[in-house]
Amino acid sequence: MQDGTLLAAVDLGSNSFRLEIGRLDHRQIHRVEYLKETVRQGGGLDEDRNLTPAAMQRGWDCLARFAERLAGFPRHHVRAVATQTLREARNREDFITRGSKILGFPINIVSGPEEARLIYQGVARLLPQSDERRLVVDIGGRSTELILGRQFTPSTVASCRVGSVAWSARHFTDGALTRQAFESAETAAKAVLDEAIGSYQRGAWDVAYGASGTVGAVGAILAAAGGEKGVIRRDGLDWLREQLLRARHVDRLRLDGLKDDRRPVIGGGVSIVRAVFELLDIDQMAVAQGALRQGALYDLLDREQPETDLRSDSVRALMQRFAVDNGHAERVAQLACRLFLDAAPPGSERAARKLGWAARLHEIGRRISHSDYHHHGAYILDHADAAGFALPELHRLSLLVLGHRGKLRKLQAADLDDPVFALQLMCLRTAVALCHARRAPDVQGITLRLEGRRCIVRSRQGWSASYPQSAHLLREEGCAWQKTPWEFVADLS
Amino acid sequence: MQDGTLLAAVDLGSNSFRLEIGRLDHRQIHRVEYLKETVRQGGGLDEDRNLTPAAMQRGWDCLARFAERLAGFPRHHVRAVATQTLREARNREDFITRGSKILGFPINIVSGPEEARLIYQGVARLLPQSDERRLVVDIGGRSTELILGRQFTPSTVASCRVGSVAWSARHFTDGALTRQAFESAETAAKAVLDEAIGSYQRGAWDVAYGASGTVGAVGAILAAAGGEKGVIRRDGLDWLREQLLRARHVDRLRLDGLKDDRRPVIGGGVSIVRAVFELLDIDQMAVAQGALRQGALYDLLDREQPETDLRSDSVRALMQRFAVDNGHAERVAQLACRLFLDAAPPGSERAARKLGWAARLHEIGRRISHSDYHHHGAYILDHADAAGFALPELHRLSLLVLGHRGKLRKLQAADLDDPVFALQLMCLRTAVALCHARRAPDVQGITLRLEGRRCIVRSRQGWSASYPQSAHLLREEGCAWQKTPWEFVADLS
Repeated sequence: MQDGTLLAAVDLGSNSFRLEIGRLDHRQIHRVEYLKETVRQGGGLDEDRNLTPAAMQRGWDCLARFAERLAGFPRHHVRAVATQTLREARNREDFITRGSKILGFPINIVSGPEEARLIYQGVARLLPQSDERRLVVDIGGRSTELILGRQFTPSTVASCRVGSVAWSARHFTDGALTRQAFESAETAAKAVLDEAIGSYQRGAWDVAYGASGTVGAVGAILAAAGGEKGVIRRDGLDWLREQLLRARHVDRLRLDGLKDDRRPVIGGGVSIVRAVFELLDIDQMAVAQGALRQGALYDLLDREQPETDLRSDSVRALMQRFAVDNGHAERVAQLACRLFLDAAPPGSERAARKLGWAARLHEIGRRISHSDYHHHGAYILDHADAAGFALPELHRLSLLVLGHRGKLRKLQAADLDDPVFALQLMCLRTAVALCHARRAPDVQGITLRLEGRRCIVRSRQGWSASYPQSAHLLREEGCAWQKTPWEFVADLS
Repeated sequence: MQDGTLLAAVDLGSNSFRLEIGRLDHRQIHRVEYLKETVRQGGGLDEDRNLTPAAMQRGWDCLARFAERLAGFPRHHVRAVATQTLREARNREDFITRGSKILGFPINIVSGPEEARLIYQGVARLLPQSDERRLVVDIGGRSTELILGRQFTPSTVASCRVGSVAWSARHFTDGALTRQAFESAETAAKAVLDEAIGSYQRGAWDVAYGASGTVGAVGAILAAAGGEKGVIRRDGLDWLREQLLRARHVDRLRLDGLKDDRRPVIGGGVSIVRAVFELLDIDQMAVAQGALRQGALYDLLDREQPETDLRSDSVRALMQRFAVDNGHAERVAQLACRLFLDAAPPGSERAARKLGWAARLHEIGRRISHSDYHHHGAYILDHADAAGFALPELHRLSLLVLGHRGKLRKLQAADLDDPVFALQLMCLRTAVALCHARRAPDVQGITLRLEGRRCIVRSRQGWSASYPQSAHLLREEGCAWQKTPWEFVADLS
């Protein structure tokens, strides 16, 4: 990517939506513009965990404003990331589908651990270079991320369902700030956090950083009251809680540094900060500048080059975690990508990279059972933590793994309609068939071509007599694609 | 178990149902009675993989006859095992529920690998003691199992969807025995077998054994034609195929040794035997006596003692395969079982053993992701290969893992109605709560009692002040059991 390129990240958080635009300069990204709107969608989940129509509309209206600013950006220069509220919302598809259309760019829901990783990356990129061991805590509207790491690399990530919006609604009903509310909020927060961070030992970090609006707001109030700027200490937190208790209600709060949009969620926020301090035995926390959106911007940069694409590392990690037969996976991946790049239009390198990942992971489900292992593999990919991936990306890999063997009726018509997906799948299935003997196949002269909606595999003269089993499998492939919009022809000699 | 005890196994196969009754004598089981009925349920699957009403009725009628013979057997002396047809049938629950009632004993569907293990065990128990390395092949009506092993222990098992009933229906339509039918049947069989047994290298066994009706029938025909008794050779198979081709139709077959009930499925059967010989480069195969039902009988014996209960080994293997934190799992298991045995009526040792397995596996899903790991653990247990377990047993463990945290509404009312399951779950959840800090908890004086439908956890004086987090979690447990038939009371001091 050239210096001067503009990159944009949209963070659809539970409390606010934010747009960050940066300009690339020597692998650094400098802020060009920053917009924030307090959409507070996390408060708009009803009892059945559906987003209310009003909360949807607030979100779409905000995205429409962001869209105006993003008009003309190339697709690979924008990343829009949604987090806990949309992870939870049952009707998220409705919101995302229309929202992506309004924004003009796909909105990707990321998993909690992936959110944590992006936050760490965002925080680390905006801190001075240092070898210190870091704890980064990000208290969001409906989730809190805790990350241990060093330099730009997170080593342990955790994401739990504790957040300022949710905790204010649950424990500080109607804005009343009582001692009992604080006690129940802090105990409940500790219970949830404790479960997720059992492995975080005091002494595992040198410096604790807090990101996000809640920590920023607490820092600003304490600084306005005369504390050291950019630092939160235990005594400051005690003092702040006393102020809140004295006011007895958020409406009566008069605190310098407290913005109006933060007021309704300050009770939940402060109780979570206090729970984190106590549980992790923290004395002081530095207020960090970077956040999810900066992490997402730097991720756009890393994804440009295959060698810095974190997703390749994640695929390798998954292969190891589930004890994949590397030799076979690599064989299938190489062949599938070769067939794909020969048949696909120019500029299909990204799609080929994704096909390669799916091929490397196609047997991942065998760790659970050989029988129906493609289903187990799809399940794993739909639920595993895989750094660098958004959930829809993983789902696409999951669909390729699911469809790599057996009948195709288990896939949705909409997926098979997509020509890129269909070609990826044809190449994967063909490669799997050709590698059936689990050793390097003789594929000299084997070609795969796409003519309209017909895929034709051809072989050199005499090949099918030498490899009757492979020929049989390729011919069977023709049946598999019946009743789909595609035709698969094995024209073998 | 005392000598003289009668044990019974029912094998609900795709071609026949069989009942074997044996008498225990010095850890050997000697046949007392053997009944076989050709139910051919595997031919009664319709296009949607539902058992037809007629096929169900044939099965129930047969089970009713078996039930008469089994009246008065204690529950733990009978094992009824169903295999591929019922694994496949979508409406299997209908058949199993009524079938179990008719038989008077629960019918358990076992996975393919578990079927393979039982077959190996049955074959090995009836062979002379020897240290030879064995290949055992069992060609059933709808599935074929291939097992490598030594002595009584299988080392590699595979199960594939190739069988005499299915192959006859698919490739020998209407009973015509043509050269083309044999070719397509053999090629297709090799394709399916090949995928499953890629790791079976020629030289990995000293002797090949064939079990099941198909191999027995082929052996009987070849012996009647003057071949060596109990041995199948390649030239014999060639001769047999020629006889079938000459007859041109099963109805015109005149072969000594061929029983009438085998006639309709001989084409599919012979083509699979030939495919196995060719694929594994076998020269001769010995006809084995033992089968699934004998394996099931010996399994009843092994399960009696915890130290010979294979299921404990399988749980350990799963823990290792999914990298479970052993220390934590063991801690939770010990505590859960202690609470359970204190609260449950005498004679609950079997249920406690199962609770211990669930506890050791409760974090198994973390290999996929921390978030919702109880769901992932349940998925793994519902799909994993675990030797010694029937599928409903694994499902019960899966439900305990699923229910060990979070809300209980994800469980069925019918499950929670079962008092043994409910108490197992209460003890597991209580143990998980008490072990939340992932170190040995101070549980001195903690008791769990069941009074009717109310479960009461009490502590010693001062405990809840020392462990406020544990006390909080136990009190929250009270909310979790609301809207269930049970009450959970944390009466802590």
